[in-house]
Amino acid sequence: TAMLPRGRPRALGAAALLLLLLLIGFFLFRGDLDCESCEREASGGGGDPGSLPRSLTPRVLPDERPRSDAGWGYTALGQVSPTMGPYRRGEEEAAADLVSPPQLLQVAIVCAGHNSSRDVITLVKSMLFYRKNPLHLHLVTDAVARNILETLFHTWMVPAVQISFYNADELKPQVSWIPNKHYSGLYGLMKLVLPSALPPDLARVIVLDTDVTFASNIAELWALFAHFSDKQVIGLVENQSDWYLGNLWRNHRPWPALGRGFNTGVILLRLDRLRQAGWEQMWKLTATRELLTLPATSLADQDIFNAIIKEHPWLVQPLPCVWNVQLSDHTLAERCYSEASDLKVIHWNSPKKLRVKNKHVESFRNLYLTFLEYDGNLLRRELFGCPRPPPPGAEHLQRALAQLDEEDACFEFRRQQLTVHRVHITFLPHKPPPPQPHDVTLVAQLSMDRVQMLEALCRHWPGPMSLALYLTDAEAQQFLRFVETSVVLSARQDVAYHVVYREGPLYPINQLRNVALAQALTPYVFLSDIDFLPAYSLYDYLRASIKQLELGSGRKAALVVPAFETLHYRFSFPSSKAELLALLDAGSLHTFRYHEWPRGHAPTDYARWREAQAPYHVQWAADYEPYVVVPRDCPRYDPRFAGFGWNKVAHVVELDAQEYELLVLPEAFVIHLPHAPSLDISRFRSSPTYRDCLQALKDEFHQDLSRRYGAAALKYLTALQQPRGPT
Amino acid sequence: TAMLPRGRPRALGAAALLLLLLLIGFFLFRGDLDCESCEREASGGGGDPGSLPRSLTPRVLPDERPRSDAGWGYTALGQVSPTMGPYRRGEEEAAADLVSPPQLLQVAIVCAGHNSSRDVITLVKSMLFYRKNPLHLHLVTDAVARNILETLFHTWMVPAVQISFYNADELKPQVSWIPNKHYSGLYGLMKLVLPSALPPDLARVIVLDTDVTFASNIAELWALFAHFSDKQVIGLVENQSDWYLGNLWRNHRPWPALGRGFNTGVILLRLDRLRQAGWEQMWKLTATRELLTLPATSLADQDIFNAIIKEHPWLVQPLPCVWNVQLSDHTLAERCYSEASDLKVIHWNSPKKLRVKNKHVESFRNLYLTFLEYDGNLLRRELFGCPRPPPPGAEHLQRALAQLDEEDACFEFRRQQLTVHRVHITFLPHKPPPPQPHDVTLVAQLSMDRVQMLEALCRHWPGPMSLALYLTDAEAQQFLRFVETSVVLSARQDVAYHVVYREGPLYPINQLRNVALAQALTPYVFLSDIDFLPAYSLYDYLRASIKQLELGSGRKAALVVPAFETLHYRFSFPSSKAELLALLDAGSLHTFRYHEWPRGHAPTDYARWREAQAPYHVQWAADYEPYVVVPRDCPRYDPRFAGFGWNKVAHVVELDAQEYELLVLPEAFVIHLPHAPSLDISRFRSSPTYRDCLQALKDEFHQDLSRRYGAAALKYLTALQQPRGPT
Repeated sequence: TAMLPRGRPRALGAAALLLLLLLIGFFLFRGDLDCESCEREASGGGGDPGSLPRSLTPRVLPDERPRSDAGWGYTALGQVSPTMGPYRRGEEEAAADLVSPPQLLQVAIVCAGHNSSRDVITLVKSMLFYRKNPLHLHLVTDAVARNILETLFHTWMVPAVQISFYNADELKPQVSWIPNKHYSGLYGLMKLVLPSALPPDLARVIVLDTDVTFASNIAELWALFAHFSDKQVIGLVENQSDWYLGNLWRNHRPWPALGRGFNTGVILLRLDRLRQAGWEQMWKLTATRELLTLPATSLADQDIFNAIIKEHPWLVQPLPCVWNVQLSDHTLAERCYSEASDLKVIHWNSPKKLRVKNKHVESFRNLYLTFLEYDGNLLRRELFGCPRPPPPGAEHLQRALAQLDEEDACFEFRRQQLTVHRVHITFLPHKPPPPQPHDVTLVAQLSMDRVQMLEALCRHWPGPMSLALYLTDAEAQQFLRFVETSVVLSARQDVAYHVVYREGPLYPINQLRNVALAQALTPYVFLSDIDFLPAYSLYDYLRASIKQLELGSGRKAALVVPAFETLHYRFSFPSSKAELLALLDAGSLHTFRYHEWPRGHAPTDYARWREAQAPYHVQWAADYEPYVVVPRDCPRYDPRFAGFGWNKVAHVVELDAQEYELLVLPEAFVIHLPHAPSLDISRFRSSPTYRDCLQALKDEFHQDLSRRYGAAALKYLTALQQPRGPT
Repeated sequence: TAMLPRGRPRALGAAALLLLLLLIGFFLFRGDLDCESCEREASGGGGDPGSLPRSLTPRVLPDERPRSDAGWGYTALGQVSPTMGPYRRGEEEAAADLVSPPQLLQVAIVCAGHNSSRDVITLVKSMLFYRKNPLHLHLVTDAVARNILETLFHTWMVPAVQISFYNADELKPQVSWIPNKHYSGLYGLMKLVLPSALPPDLARVIVLDTDVTFASNIAELWALFAHFSDKQVIGLVENQSDWYLGNLWRNHRPWPALGRGFNTGVILLRLDRLRQAGWEQMWKLTATRELLTLPATSLADQDIFNAIIKEHPWLVQPLPCVWNVQLSDHTLAERCYSEASDLKVIHWNSPKKLRVKNKHVESFRNLYLTFLEYDGNLLRRELFGCPRPPPPGAEHLQRALAQLDEEDACFEFRRQQLTVHRVHITFLPHKPPPPQPHDVTLVAQLSMDRVQMLEALCRHWPGPMSLALYLTDAEAQQFLRFVETSVVLSARQDVAYHVVYREGPLYPINQLRNVALAQALTPYVFLSDIDFLPAYSLYDYLRASIKQLELGSGRKAALVVPAFETLHYRFSFPSSKAELLALLDAGSLHTFRYHEWPRGHAPTDYARWREAQAPYHVQWAADYEPYVVVPRDCPRYDPRFAGFGWNKVAHVVELDAQEYELLVLPEAFVIHLPHAPSLDISRFRSSPTYRDCLQALKDEFHQDLSRRYGAAALKYLTALQQPRGPT
């Protein structure tokens, strides 16, 4: 039975099919065709002008796939192009050349500040979703964006993605002389200096605005480089508005452009040719000349690119309109997409972004929301193609994961501990607190079911906070809207929200605490929990106490903030210690977990606290878990404890082992508000396995303690063997 | 400047490029090339053997896109193939033929029961995500799946998707004589009878198992029909295991097959040719003959397809392996995908499904989870291509939405009311309660933050429940896991969970109540809220009361269940009315909202209830919102009330307007447990706009009442004008 269409008027022979395959192969894979050469290009691609080159090479899963040796009977092994039909054994040899590892693609993006960092992640998610090639991202960033994106990509660990950072602030002087009225500001102009800013051996790059979304494989865009003539250096899509035609209003004088001009949201740059052609001089000359008669750029780099193209039209390779569908208020993009069943890249090039009005904005918004809310963890899936050795750390992690025993009662705990959560620090705009020697940051963690606590917390704590939020990508967007619509929350710039993306069945409480702790920027931290509201005066009182107790001068102390609880859903918060004591006497308040777990706070000695006028020392005892103020460089929380149980206890043991004094503050207090029991607690209460595992984890924790602190740690084990109350 | 590559050794001329375009066009778009013909094929495609043809044609957004008349300067308007480069004005005419509306593709799926219905939705989501063509889905279903999927597609309103249902139970006799050991059961065999079950004018169809996931555009699969020779009727991918080679174990005797045989998870069927060739007789003969020596099929339809192909090898067109990458425990699929950078369709063809072990299962699972958790609402985006007129209802909805005034204080409420939420009824396996004349279903609604109430509710209410859950697609999966791991919940088959997918900013409380109410299957319903726990005896007591009060005999009455609340987080539930009264006297319990909103329940007359021995009548009064038991055919809730406020009050007004007696039951009670305030309440409390809008909605509700009930409704308006307590 023949596999090619035959016996039909329009049938094509094997030769024609082969030609088709070759043509497609040519268009898709021209350029470097083997892994070695794309690795070569990659290694030259990293670099950070002005400082040390810094390249993150995230985890690649181990690859031990054998080359095919067994035939597949009737069907071919590989598919090169989506339009390719099946081919038979006889053609396999001819086709083998096409089945080569996918090429490394180079992408450059300019990104500055908190909001652009969020945008660029959505863009990258859309790109990763459709890509089948290894990518090298060149990110030109300010310090804020670099900090965020470096942490993000480091923890994201997407296989076959390399990241290089370039310092945008150092590039500023090259463009800051250009007066610019566009909302993108100085950073908008920075695309002009990419040929000199990117590594000199980088020959080609796709340049993207942060407000574009992919709806297709970026390799198809890269393939358009093959259409460049010898003279062409810039690939661009025509501008989809009448802006450059002029006359939009009286005295509307746009920069010169060829016809409607071109949009620079998506650019294919032949960096090698631009450098040869003296690009830097060329654009500076053009800009200088135009600025003699025009007061400023209106559309940033785009005005200058268009002026150059008007002058040297042979430099531009026009790209199909679907590669930059522009969605502004008065867009003419409909002419493009209404004819195309395929959209490749959409571009939110209006300052209104998603709130822009056009007839089909709902459809485009859906595509954007797809990636905004897409679980980025799912993009960790490996590429079947260009094999790369995993970096040593990742390999170690993989091996540890592979060695876990599924029958172990602690299997889930151990897997959770080995999980590297994707972390987006300072998800929302944030101003670091001014340096003050006794300042203290409230540190806590929460998930979506506790966000309604934040407004009250902000009212009770006027100082800096560092909060880790355990969210899905979709919840992170809900959270964003929640903060934006809250008057109380949006007024605060000193609250840093760090999103830790959900993965795995257990709430990774100590990993979250460590993220929030690591991001605290004051010398001291108040390690709290989200269900507690501090006394209104606590922030001031803590700073005064830190100063008075001279903690700054190397004294190793943990200041204990006594904890109380109300079981009442409606509750009026005491404004002073006297009022609190009155409520305590009236039975409206209790010391925290008085009914179920008094050991947790007994050493705080509430009786003494009632009368105390000055800070007093207390001794560590088994199961003590007070809320404390400590220097920022305090020990981290032990990540083996996840879900419910022993997560804070272990930290206080660690403080004691490191000989922190425990000092109770006489005027400090926090009150726990009631809430529905968390799922983790329900699980703990109902599952014997959970309790068995917790016991195993405690034992291992104590073994580790002995290893680190020797005989001194023996007391923690013996303390536990004392008779005690209910657990 | 020329746009074609030139001056390079490998450059191709314009003629070659044009040939490429034509070739691609040929492979992608052979067959019907215009909209009219795909509409024609579509209209013949619907049908339901044995009963009335029933075809859902969901909403298509209005389409008034003009044909292009203005040129795009340098770039082409349309893109036909992903590999196509840009082409210039001169070529537009030649290319115009290729820019034709996409063809209607036909897909058939056999689906039975609750779990398969969930699977098929994930498959459809993956298909819709990548598709660019109108689709006609032919669903062969049992009654359960039909009920679920009909509601789902009706509320999903995906443009350019038609659905036809076929009654699987009527097809059963045609295959039930075949002994089958495969886990798919009888339904697995049903693919054999598709040529006769599907409409006689349907010539080609893609047949899919419910456990496949698309990673590419289904049009590319459809295009493979073009490769069929004149004799070929079935397109299949080779089986990716050694099953059919035999000798997997001692006495392993598989059905006959050609080499490794073929897998039937993805099939291209030429129905027209199969009918001509006498398919029905052919497969029945082969099956009968093989069953003389083999006891049963092991792999259902697949064994029979393979036996036929072994006998008539010319019938099969082998498809590239990437169109059915089979992920069983001992899969050889790696030979396929390790060479292909592209996966097209993955197939979870092991009974272990996602828990299957193979080296790259993590990557495949990520792809599957992408669609499992994907927000299906985003697939409502319109297709740019084959324009279809929207069905009348959708057009009306669109117009109403377009007429909303964004400045209106109620804008969000009105938009929420016009939102059609996607609804997945009986998301989990469910057995309808046996018909009993006095049975009563507890009806309530909730979102993810209240699922921890369900176990307690199940302990308190041993009868049937109908619960509407307002969830995202991802949360629905979390919920599924929650139920599966709960001993209490997974033991209950009489609790029906209906997932209403989230959309819009307001909690659509009354729409949710209406979904739960519509799905209640007993003659009576208890309209409750999720934060209330009923007295342990309530279910029995209500059935006895319904019987005793002779509600069945047409008496129109609402039985009032008095409501109480505890403000205490920990609380021991009273086991009798006497115990409840003692707690009330001790101040541990209060009548519901005693402190903030006594009007809501005052007419229940708690003083009288204390002493009552028999049901007593009470009169409606303003703002009364008791929890009631009513016949299932009671009035629906008014969907204009969303979020917080007046949603239940309006329903009770409606009951009173329809002259329901209000009878308080002396032994009935429910108790409200405390919880953190919902975001909607917080919003209501802080926003004057929200309160203004609520007032406007109330006014409109009263106007509507007057319109429907005339002067009798005046009392509701005047009642509100009485002086009253705080709102």
